Amino acid sequence: MVESWSFLDTVESNFRPLVVIELAKSTKEETIEWLTKRIVDKKADGGAQLLIKPLVMENGVENIYLVGASHLRLLLGAETVGLVKECSDNSMRAFTYSSRKTFKHFADDNHDFLTMAECQYIIKHELENLRAKDEKMIPGYPHAKLYPGKSIVRRLLTSGILVQIFPLHDREELKKLSHSWYGRVKVGYQPLDDIRCYFGETIALYFGFLEYFTFALIPMAVIGIPYYVFAWEDYDKYVMFATFNLLWSTVILEVWKRICAILTYRWGTLLMKRQFEEPRPGFHGVLGINPVTGREEPVYSSIKRQLRIYLVSLPFVCLCLYFSLYVMMIYFDLEQWALDYHKENESNFSSLMLYVPSIIYAVVIEIMNRIYRYAAEFLTSWENHRLESSYQNHLILKVLVFNFLNCFASLFYIAFVLFDMKLLRQSLATLLITSQILNQFAESLLPYWLQKRYNRRMKKSMCSKKTGTDLSLAEQVNMEKEMGTYLGTFDDYLELFLQFGYVSLFSCVYPLAAVFAVLNNTTEIYSDALKMCRVYKRPFAEPTANIGVWQLAFETMSVISVVTNCILIGMSPQVDALFPDSKMDLVLTVALIEHLLLAIKFIMAFVIPDKPRDIQMKLAKLEFESLEALKQQVRAFQMQL
Amino acid sequence: MVESWSFLDTVESNFRPLVVIELAKSTKEETIEWLTKRIVDKKADGGAQLLIKPLVMENGVENIYLVGASHLRLLLGAETVGLVKECSDNSMRAFTYSSRKTFKHFADDNHDFLTMAECQYIIKHELENLRAKDEKMIPGYPHAKLYPGKSIVRRLLTSGILVQIFPLHDREELKKLSHSWYGRVKVGYQPLDDIRCYFGETIALYFGFLEYFTFALIPMAVIGIPYYVFAWEDYDKYVMFATFNLLWSTVILEVWKRICAILTYRWGTLLMKRQFEEPRPGFHGVLGINPVTGREEPVYSSIKRQLRIYLVSLPFVCLCLYFSLYVMMIYFDLEQWALDYHKENESNFSSLMLYVPSIIYAVVIEIMNRIYRYAAEFLTSWENHRLESSYQNHLILKVLVFNFLNCFASLFYIAFVLFDMKLLRQSLATLLITSQILNQFAESLLPYWLQKRYNRRMKKSMCSKKTGTDLSLAEQVNMEKEMGTYLGTFDDYLELFLQFGYVSLFSCVYPLAAVFAVLNNTTEIYSDALKMCRVYKRPFAEPTANIGVWQLAFETMSVISVVTNCILIGMSPQVDALFPDSKMDLVLTVALIEHLLLAIKFIMAFVIPDKPRDIQMKLAKLEFESLEALKQQVRAFQMQL
Repeated sequence: MVESWSFLDTVESNFRPLVVIELAKSTKEETIEWLTKRIVDKKADGGAQLLIKPLVMENGVENIYLVGASHLRLLLGAETVGLVKECSDNSMRAFTYSSRKTFKHFADDNHDFLTMAECQYIIKHELENLRAKDEKMIPGYPHAKLYPGKSIVRRLLTSGILVQIFPLHDREELKKLSHSWYGRVKVGYQPLDDIRCYFGETIALYFGFLEYFTFALIPMAVIGIPYYVFAWEDYDKYVMFATFNLLWSTVILEVWKRICAILTYRWGTLLMKRQFEEPRPGFHGVLGINPVTGREEPVYSSIKRQLRIYLVSLPFVCLCLYFSLYVMMIYFDLEQWALDYHKENESNFSSLMLYVPSIIYAVVIEIMNRIYRYAAEFLTSWENHRLESSYQNHLILKVLVFNFLNCFASLFYIAFVLFDMKLLRQSLATLLITSQILNQFAESLLPYWLQKRYNRRMKKSMCSKKTGTDLSLAEQVNMEKEMGTYLGTFDDYLELFLQFGYVSLFSCVYPLAAVFAVLNNTTEIYSDALKMCRVYKRPFAEPTANIGVWQLAFETMSVISVVTNCILIGMSPQVDALFPDSKMDLVLTVALIEHLLLAIKFIMAFVIPDKPRDIQMKLAKLEFESLEALKQQVRAFQMQL
Repeated sequence: MVESWSFLDTVESNFRPLVVIELAKSTKEETIEWLTKRIVDKKADGGAQLLIKPLVMENGVENIYLVGASHLRLLLGAETVGLVKECSDNSMRAFTYSSRKTFKHFADDNHDFLTMAECQYIIKHELENLRAKDEKMIPGYPHAKLYPGKSIVRRLLTSGILVQIFPLHDREELKKLSHSWYGRVKVGYQPLDDIRCYFGETIALYFGFLEYFTFALIPMAVIGIPYYVFAWEDYDKYVMFATFNLLWSTVILEVWKRICAILTYRWGTLLMKRQFEEPRPGFHGVLGINPVTGREEPVYSSIKRQLRIYLVSLPFVCLCLYFSLYVMMIYFDLEQWALDYHKENESNFSSLMLYVPSIIYAVVIEIMNRIYRYAAEFLTSWENHRLESSYQNHLILKVLVFNFLNCFASLFYIAFVLFDMKLLRQSLATLLITSQILNQFAESLLPYWLQKRYNRRMKKSMCSKKTGTDLSLAEQVNMEKEMGTYLGTFDDYLELFLQFGYVSLFSCVYPLAAVFAVLNNTTEIYSDALKMCRVYKRPFAEPTANIGVWQLAFETMSVISVVTNCILIGMSPQVDALFPDSKMDLVLTVALIEHLLLAIKFIMAFVIPDKPRDIQMKLAKLEFESLEALKQQVRAFQMQL
């Protein structure tokens, strides 16, 4: 029985398992029956019109279900979610079933027209949009209340009946992808289009940004190396480096927008219409009428939320910021103590001890960042935001502010209170390198090692029973459901954001930072790729057209770095020596240059178009066509009169 | 014959003249015949399907035509241009003829459903979209080439056959409007909705902004008065005033966006879809294929345009800026000469002479601004921009930069090079007051007086022949066609922009500027209203959803004013005295405060939502409904399968 379910040999030849549903082991029979019926029911009857099969495990427990859909159903779903595909004339258009023949590579028997990630995204969308009709509760669970229009899957998830939903890996495709991605050591671009086909646009865009950012850092790194090699200490050289750095960072952020537009146009997400956002699963409140949709759903007063934000979250964040500064002061005490110790004892051990406070502090910072992250998630969830996007924005803001202060406060203190450039350089190097090592370890290597150990154990226990090398479907599902869940690109972007801070905030003091960043990112690409392919469950594809709030975060960082670099240069003894008579003139000159640089930055950001000309033309053409079509309709109607 | 054409007594009762077309006197008969036929032809035959009547003048010359349209034609036109009207359920929706019954105040016999301004806008749109079919030229004028799709009216205009097109005034409505607008001295708001109905959204929005801006200046003016009355010279008071001013100017600009959204939502333009932009009339080039529309039209290489911009326009603007600075230096020489003269002669006349250079300079600035304006228009037109919007943006940028420098360079020089606060205050006052007086005179009073004189002459010559007091239609048309053409809101906004500069750039030196601004704007409302109603031809209504690039210009000015005010305060002797030991500390403190203020400004601009919550909700509701409608369509289609 188990064998007959293997991936290549399904009972019905047209049933391709795409998504796995894991129910709680104790789920009642009537609930399962009701859910299955609702999933299979026709659209006209309010169902999802998908295919579902139980996966019978060896121990006979039936709590895992495989969901698939017919080819036609998927095509209709593609229209519902508004997928944009390439037409035969190379333009990108929203897919509709009635115009299917005009699309490139479409054929009624071509089941590869939609990528597997797209099919899984469609199924997820259909499942999430399976809504209660007149059910007052989930059958068998009187406490899991339902009301007309409530998403059934979301209620099942929040009431614990549904353990998880995840898309299946395609082991063949994954093998091919991982080979071309990180399987061989090569110089070249990542297979972004393949990554997008397999993991969806959000993840492909992250890897695209990571790669682009690494390439963009190379000029900085190349210019930075001679400063280290020849031990240049002339501040005119530092001024040149910093100026290049500041203008360069503006240029790369602007150019990224253009590259992002090129990528997402090709992937169709640039043109994809935004779907109406449903309340996030964790949102709760008393039942009321949503003024926008007119539907019954939980409502929660916006004033209450504002009160929670300003009276609880804001003070808490401030307290955490204060605590972080307090820890920083302890670090400086330790630093002083280590210095004194070194002076008294002057040994190899004592000179090594000089680095210990920085390393300890770097570790403490990482730990504090992670603890704070949980607190921020809890608080933001408690603020009870209706939309996932608003939840994400509040979470990102909280985490960014804290991480920024936590990571950079000590550097600011050293630079602008202690005026100790040597210590600044040393701290910067220690913080940057330690945090990079910790991150690589905690993010990829540790989970990978844990996963590998688990897999070995799993395989061992299976191999004892059978001899086949290929995993059966049941085994695959069993293995994948135990894998960790990838929680999104947040941590990865945050890491890049902090790295950008290390590179640009104090670039004129430590030009080598860019070199370390490039080295780190090169390995980061590989370890992140490994993480995606081997450590975590396959995530659902998420269409996206840009990197969202991170663009703003990076731009803000680059504005702050103009200020810090100008101050640093103004403080240097060499520049100081240029104005022997009047310190006033020095400060005024520095302030003038800073304002000029900021003005140039803003003008550059304004002048460089966000989209390349050919993309602009293509978008204009599409807009023109839709306006023309509308006019044709009006005209046709007028002719009837 | 003339009498039967009077406004209230048209030959056909359903023909209401809306728009006047004035052809050149020598226009050939065949051209007129062809044009009339094209205008009257059915839509299906490529015509505009409008009504047209010749207006026979007393001297028998037939070069003026009146254009109207049937009620049904106007309703269909409203759908074509995408007018948004209020429905019976108080929501705003794009008008369609098939859903006409759902709109508020709609009845088949209610000819007031569309305002006269809307009808005229529709007719203008239809006339401009009357396109050549297979004509190779305008009949009778072999040099006026046509190609399929070329707008006939635009070609007629550029080849001088069509002298002008303008909408007729509605004398009854105008009388009512001008009475409620400026007819009586009253404290209260302007009748913005009536202005919008009569003149369209662009002009109503200008008056809305003028009124809002004046009200917003009142707090500044009120706080500024005691500084003058009590001759407060304490700099802590000035610091308070400047800080209030800076934050206030951010708040008012952000709040304006919200008010603008409320107004344009009510007027329907917030929801109006942008029409596809046709090339501007002046655009020329060799015939080619537009890559966006696929139509034949003149194309002009973007590289050539860039070359013209960067190799000719930019150097020219720089030259003008240099010239403006040169004139400024002459002014300072004059100023010095006047001072010397006063010292030598010490008489009433000599102390009066002290003001002469400033006044001369203010007059010269105004003259230079106006001359430069012509040069900028010529250059921008020569740059050959394809779109009117791009032309406007380049023109505004050129004019703004020059005007900014021309008006404020001398003040910057006095403040930051001469450090002469007394002279700064005096120059500021002279410049502000002189430019206000000149503007009021040149913009409204002079044209009004000229117009009045002309009207008197006209009336006299008519009254000699007949006795009736009401003007006949022919007389009305004859009078209106000689009136000046209103060239758009550019000059009016520019005046407000410069005024905003005078008020905010040096607010801590001359708090009384806000008082003068309020006084000026109060009369400006009346003189601008007079100008619109009595001096100029009625302009065509232009739907618009915001004040466009001016919002950005005002915001930029408010950022610059943070910098200037911080420097001014830092330079004051009182603040200087707070840091007796170290000038460094002073400058650093000022720089820190400046950065803090800028940061607060940006955070405030980010935090204050651009649209009020209820408008957001209404927009979300509309978006939700259109998504739902789309889904319904998809579902209906899927059910058929």
